[in-house]
Amino acid sequence: MSGDLGAEVVVRAAAATLAKYQHVNLVLVGDETELSALAGNIVGADARLSIRHASEVVAMSEPPAEALRKKKDSSMRVAINLVKDGSADACVSAGNTGALMATAKFVLKMLPGIDRPAIIAELPALGGSLHMLDLGANTQATPEQLFQYAVMGSIVAADINGIEAPRVSLLNIGAEDTKGHDTVKEAAALLSASALNYVGFIEGTDLMSGKTDVVVTDGFTGNVALKTMEGTVGLCKHHLRTAFSRNWFTKLQAFLAAPVLRALASNMDSRNYNGATLAGLNGIVIKSHGSADAYAFQHAIDTAIVEVRNQLPQQIGSLLKKEAA
Amino acid sequence: MSGDLGAEVVVRAAAATLAKYQHVNLVLVGDETELSALAGNIVGADARLSIRHASEVVAMSEPPAEALRKKKDSSMRVAINLVKDGSADACVSAGNTGALMATAKFVLKMLPGIDRPAIIAELPALGGSLHMLDLGANTQATPEQLFQYAVMGSIVAADINGIEAPRVSLLNIGAEDTKGHDTVKEAAALLSASALNYVGFIEGTDLMSGKTDVVVTDGFTGNVALKTMEGTVGLCKHHLRTAFSRNWFTKLQAFLAAPVLRALASNMDSRNYNGATLAGLNGIVIKSHGSADAYAFQHAIDTAIVEVRNQLPQQIGSLLKKEAA
Repeated sequence: MSGDLGAEVVVRAAAATLAKYQHVNLVLVGDETELSALAGNIVGADARLSIRHASEVVAMSEPPAEALRKKKDSSMRVAINLVKDGSADACVSAGNTGALMATAKFVLKMLPGIDRPAIIAELPALGGSLHMLDLGANTQATPEQLFQYAVMGSIVAADINGIEAPRVSLLNIGAEDTKGHDTVKEAAALLSASALNYVGFIEGTDLMSGKTDVVVTDGFTGNVALKTMEGTVGLCKHHLRTAFSRNWFTKLQAFLAAPVLRALASNMDSRNYNGATLAGLNGIVIKSHGSADAYAFQHAIDTAIVEVRNQLPQQIGSLLKKEAA
Repeated sequence: MSGDLGAEVVVRAAAATLAKYQHVNLVLVGDETELSALAGNIVGADARLSIRHASEVVAMSEPPAEALRKKKDSSMRVAINLVKDGSADACVSAGNTGALMATAKFVLKMLPGIDRPAIIAELPALGGSLHMLDLGANTQATPEQLFQYAVMGSIVAADINGIEAPRVSLLNIGAEDTKGHDTVKEAAALLSASALNYVGFIEGTDLMSGKTDVVVTDGFTGNVALKTMEGTVGLCKHHLRTAFSRNWFTKLQAFLAAPVLRALASNMDSRNYNGATLAGLNGIVIKSHGSADAYAFQHAIDTAIVEVRNQLPQQIGSLLKKEAA
């Protein structure tokens, strides 16, 4: 209910998901009247889709603490409750990030050994993809928390992409040991002493170079880096569009080059990377971009399905236990 | 002497600068034998170019404190000394950033009211450019230091781009007042109370959107954002190249679209933005990218010339005095 584009996007993504997978059941959580109007015909035809009523919606601008305290029957809260009581294996939401995180942390609790959840997402990289965290769950992180992020990132990369011993890097302002502030240097010491495949510091220039599988950083820096990528891709696309629409000759070129430009757009299309995991929770919660369309939202559901199949929380928990031993 | 590509790049940039400007004098500082071999014919023909011998070179990997203590006759140190004693109006170097900053701070001193230098550069933005600082001079910054950066950034934007009342933003992970850590919130309070044209928080997505003229952040975040932009542009270019070289048909398209692709490349060419200012010093020092070619290095000299014409240090000093009053 609480994404920027409303419930219709979610219903369309649900329909596409049911067509794609044989053994997936979906519950639409929210206003029953609205959801029935949008999805009634699918619910009637396919027993794998059901509707669960929730009387409230958390607004995008609502302070997380307030949403948590006052909206006990929000679509977000009810969906997370379904994960808590085992009626659902995962929750996917395009709603208010802060409220989703606060609610998920309160209802599901953290895994033992994890202080705070971190937001992790898969991003485009040369020859594959990379997993970066924290993308904004917490503005600051201690060296120990960065270490926990590294454990979680390793599991996600190994699970989702099947990478054995994923290469883990710390985002820093230089590759040399002497670079950066104390937090990042101390985290490097912890990672060097661990069983993780820590490969050192990485700079912004090399984020998408294919040299690393997991990039660990605090939520402030990670959020800025992620959004700067998005903004830069937008500027590149803008310049291409402008250049190709200058006159009839460049427009003809654009027409001829359309398949190539579409390939570029698809490579850099953030919709193909939609669906960030709230890692560290005792349960699976996926955050979709607030303005995701049905195509992007479906990708977020895909991510949830992969994590359920691979029992992500259990795997993070057992690796943490191994590291602590 | 100390850039990645050696003195030849600098000599070629110097020759181009002399051809472009009538009233500029240049001093090449470094090994006299090497510089004479490279530039002897120009020095003979044009009295505006001279050579000043320096017996040492600071290596790229040399710790700044060591360079400062041990290499008193490095090309970098001698060049900055020329600024100190008034023989030169500005110093441009492609050498070790940390050593350049430490040496400049030690020799030239800070302007009254400025704690530390900040690295500021002009970057591409929609419909113009933006000035961002700190790009890595200091890994952390207090709210007061962020405020000082804002003052320096305003002056540079006004001076270099002639923008009246440049719009100043703080880089943050959300646009709302409640977002971010305490440092950025306290800096926002200082800026709101100042005479600067503070327009609020800005997210990474909007850095290059044309909504702001000056972006203020700590050196860690700024460096990551800058390098992430570079890396993202590189990935876009790579995808374009790959897509266009797939087969003879796409190669033909690339040939037809070459002027458009060149326009894109030029718009996003970091060489056109080479030359970062070490702001806050009592003197003008410009840092060129270590791997700058002659074209890029010439752009760094251009920046120095504009700052000399506009007496940048004096302007920053007087605005700070006004803000303190």
